[in-house]
Amino acid sequence: MSATATRPAVDLADTPVVTIDLDVMEANIRRLQAYCDAHSIANRPHIKTHKIPEIARRQLAAGAIGITCQKLGEVAVMLEAGLRDILVTYNVLGTAKVRRLRALADHPGARLSVAVDNAAVARALSDAFAGAPDPLRVLVECDTGTGRTGVPTPAAAVELAREIAALPGLWFEGLMTYPITDETARFVEATLAKLAHAGLRARTVSTGGTPAYPRAHTVPGVTEHRAGTYVFNDRATVAAGVADWDDCAMQIRTTVVSRPTPDRAILDAGSKTLSSDLLGQTGYGRIVEYPEAVIVRLNEEHGIVDLSACARRPEVGEVVSVIPNHTCVVTNLHDALVGVRGGRAEVVWPVAARGAVR
Amino acid sequence: MSATATRPAVDLADTPVVTIDLDVMEANIRRLQAYCDAHSIANRPHIKTHKIPEIARRQLAAGAIGITCQKLGEVAVMLEAGLRDILVTYNVLGTAKVRRLRALADHPGARLSVAVDNAAVARALSDAFAGAPDPLRVLVECDTGTGRTGVPTPAAAVELAREIAALPGLWFEGLMTYPITDETARFVEATLAKLAHAGLRARTVSTGGTPAYPRAHTVPGVTEHRAGTYVFNDRATVAAGVADWDDCAMQIRTTVVSRPTPDRAILDAGSKTLSSDLLGQTGYGRIVEYPEAVIVRLNEEHGIVDLSACARRPEVGEVVSVIPNHTCVVTNLHDALVGVRGGRAEVVWPVAARGAVR
Repeated sequence: MSATATRPAVDLADTPVVTIDLDVMEANIRRLQAYCDAHSIANRPHIKTHKIPEIARRQLAAGAIGITCQKLGEVAVMLEAGLRDILVTYNVLGTAKVRRLRALADHPGARLSVAVDNAAVARALSDAFAGAPDPLRVLVECDTGTGRTGVPTPAAAVELAREIAALPGLWFEGLMTYPITDETARFVEATLAKLAHAGLRARTVSTGGTPAYPRAHTVPGVTEHRAGTYVFNDRATVAAGVADWDDCAMQIRTTVVSRPTPDRAILDAGSKTLSSDLLGQTGYGRIVEYPEAVIVRLNEEHGIVDLSACARRPEVGEVVSVIPNHTCVVTNLHDALVGVRGGRAEVVWPVAARGAVR
Repeated sequence: MSATATRPAVDLADTPVVTIDLDVMEANIRRLQAYCDAHSIANRPHIKTHKIPEIARRQLAAGAIGITCQKLGEVAVMLEAGLRDILVTYNVLGTAKVRRLRALADHPGARLSVAVDNAAVARALSDAFAGAPDPLRVLVECDTGTGRTGVPTPAAAVELAREIAALPGLWFEGLMTYPITDETARFVEATLAKLAHAGLRARTVSTGGTPAYPRAHTVPGVTEHRAGTYVFNDRATVAAGVADWDDCAMQIRTTVVSRPTPDRAILDAGSKTLSSDLLGQTGYGRIVEYPEAVIVRLNEEHGIVDLSACARRPEVGEVVSVIPNHTCVVTNLHDALVGVRGGRAEVVWPVAARGAVR
C-alpha cells in the first residue's frame, strides 16, 4: 500500500473528476474484513464497484480469499492482473460465453466458480466442461426474497443441485444468494436440510451485499460473504445505516458552471458522470459543502441544483464535491479514478474492466 | 458511405451488444437534413448521441455545416478526426479547460464557437483569447423555458451580449437556446429587437433538440438547428411524435438469462448497459419481440422484465432486441457500436469520445 514514487500530475480543479480518499477506502476494507474475521466468514469482495485490479489486490492483502465478478470481461481483466480465485455470480449463457469461460478456467492457477439458477445454463456448462481437467464449481443461486434471479424455493434449489451434481464436468459447490433479506436464513436453512437429506453437501454458502452485511453471520451455514460497495460507500449505504458520511471514499469533484437564478446552480456533472440511479434517494447526490442543496435533475452533462434551502450559496467557478447515490455505476462511467490522500492526488487508476460489458 | 471491404467478425449473439441499423440511421440523417434544407436552416448535429467521428462525417456529407459538442474531450476527438466547425454548447470554465480550449482553437483549420450564460465565463475566455489570431465566436445561451442554463430574460441576454462584444478576443456571434418551448419564439424575438436597438447583430440564432425540431423554423431569425438523438431515435423521440418505431436505429441485443417465474424474465442488460434514464417512459426500454413486456427494474447487469401482459413468452437463452429510452446515454456506456445492415454486421465503430468526461 505504499504511495507511488512520483505524484501524478492531476489537476483536481479540472472537473468532473472522481476521487477516492485512500485513507477512507483502506479503513473500509479493514472494517468489513474485521467483521468477516470475527465471524469466521470468508470475504469475497465484488469488484464491480471498482473494476480495478490494484484495489482487488488490496482487498486480498487485507484478508479476502478471492473476488466476485459479474461478467466474463471482468474475469478476464482480473485473471490477467494476477487474481486467481474468482466467483462469477451470473448465469453464463450462449455459445461464445461458455467457450470463453472454459478458456478462462484453463488460465494457469485460475480457480473459477459460477452461480446458476436454471438447468439450461447448467447443461450448457456441462457440455463445455465435460472434458476439462478440473470440474467447474457451480453454486445454485437462490431467490431469498428479492425477486430477481435465483430458484424460487428450497425444493427447486435441491432439484437443481441434484442435476448439477449429476452432470459431467460440474461440481456442486453450494448455495449463493443476494441480498440478505428477512427470508434468507429460513430459505437457506430449509435448503441445507433438504440437501443433506438428498446426500448433497453445500461446501459453500455465499451471501452478498453491503447494506445487510452485518447480518451475514445470522444466515445458517454461511461460509463466505460478497460485498462490493463497502469499499467506497455512497448515499445508499449511508441510508442503510452501514456507513457514515466520513466513510464515503468516493467523491466527484464538479464545478458550478452557471448560477442562472438565485435558487439554481448548474454543475458540470450530469447523468454521464453521476448516472441516473436514485436507489431510493432524493436527488442525485449529496453536495458535501452544501448538504442542504438538492441535485433535483440531471441532463447528460448538467446537474441542476436547487439551492433554496441553503443559507450560503456557491459562486460560478466554485468546485464542490458530490457523494454519489451509487458508486458502482459511477466507476463504470469513468476512464480513471484518482486516489487522493490528505486532499492530494497520490495515484491514478485506470478503470481496467470498464469496457467489460460481456 | 461504402461498406467496409471485409465484414467484421461480430457475434451478435454474444450479448449485450449495441447495434445500429445503418439503413435506418441513413434515412434519419436524410430526413432531418431535408427539413433543414426546406427551411434554409443550417444543420449542426450534436455528436453527444454517437461520439463517433465516422457518423459525424456522414452527417456532414448529407449537408450539415458543422457539429455540436458538449465537452472539450469530444472536441479534441472530433478535431483529430478532421471535423473542423464545432460549436461547444457549454460554459467552458476553469484554468485548465480555458487553456485547452485555446489550444484546440489553434488547431489548423479549426472554427470553434462556444456558448456562455454568464459574464464570469466570458471574462475568463477573453483573458485566454485576447492575444489569439482570431477572436473566439461566443453565443449567449438563453433559457427560453427549460429551467437549466441560460440567461433568464431578453434584457439579461442583451447585457451579456454587450459585455462579450466589448471584451478583447471575443466576437459576439449570436444566440443559442435549448430546447424549443412555447416560450422560445417570444424570447428570441424580443432579444433580437433589443440587440438591434443596442446596435448588436446576432449572426447566428441556434436552436436545439430532436423532440421539437419540426418547430425550429417558427423561431424568429433562426439560422441553425442542433439535433442529436434524431440520428438513432429512441423511445423518447417516438413518444414525442417525431419518430416511429421503424425509425429507431439503435437496438441493444440482450439474452434472457433466467426465467425464475412464469411472469418474470431476466435480461443480461442492466443499468450499466441501458442506463437508468426513464425520460418519462414506463420501464427501461421496449422489447421489440415482446412489446407488451415491461422492463420494470434494472440492477447493474440485470434487467427485470414483467411478462404478465405477454401471451407469448421468451425462453432462457433467447436473444431479444431492446429499443432504449435514451440513446445518448447508452452510447456512452459502450466501447463500440456495431453497424448492421439487413441484420448482418457491417462495421464496428469504437465510441471514440466515450471517455471524454471533461
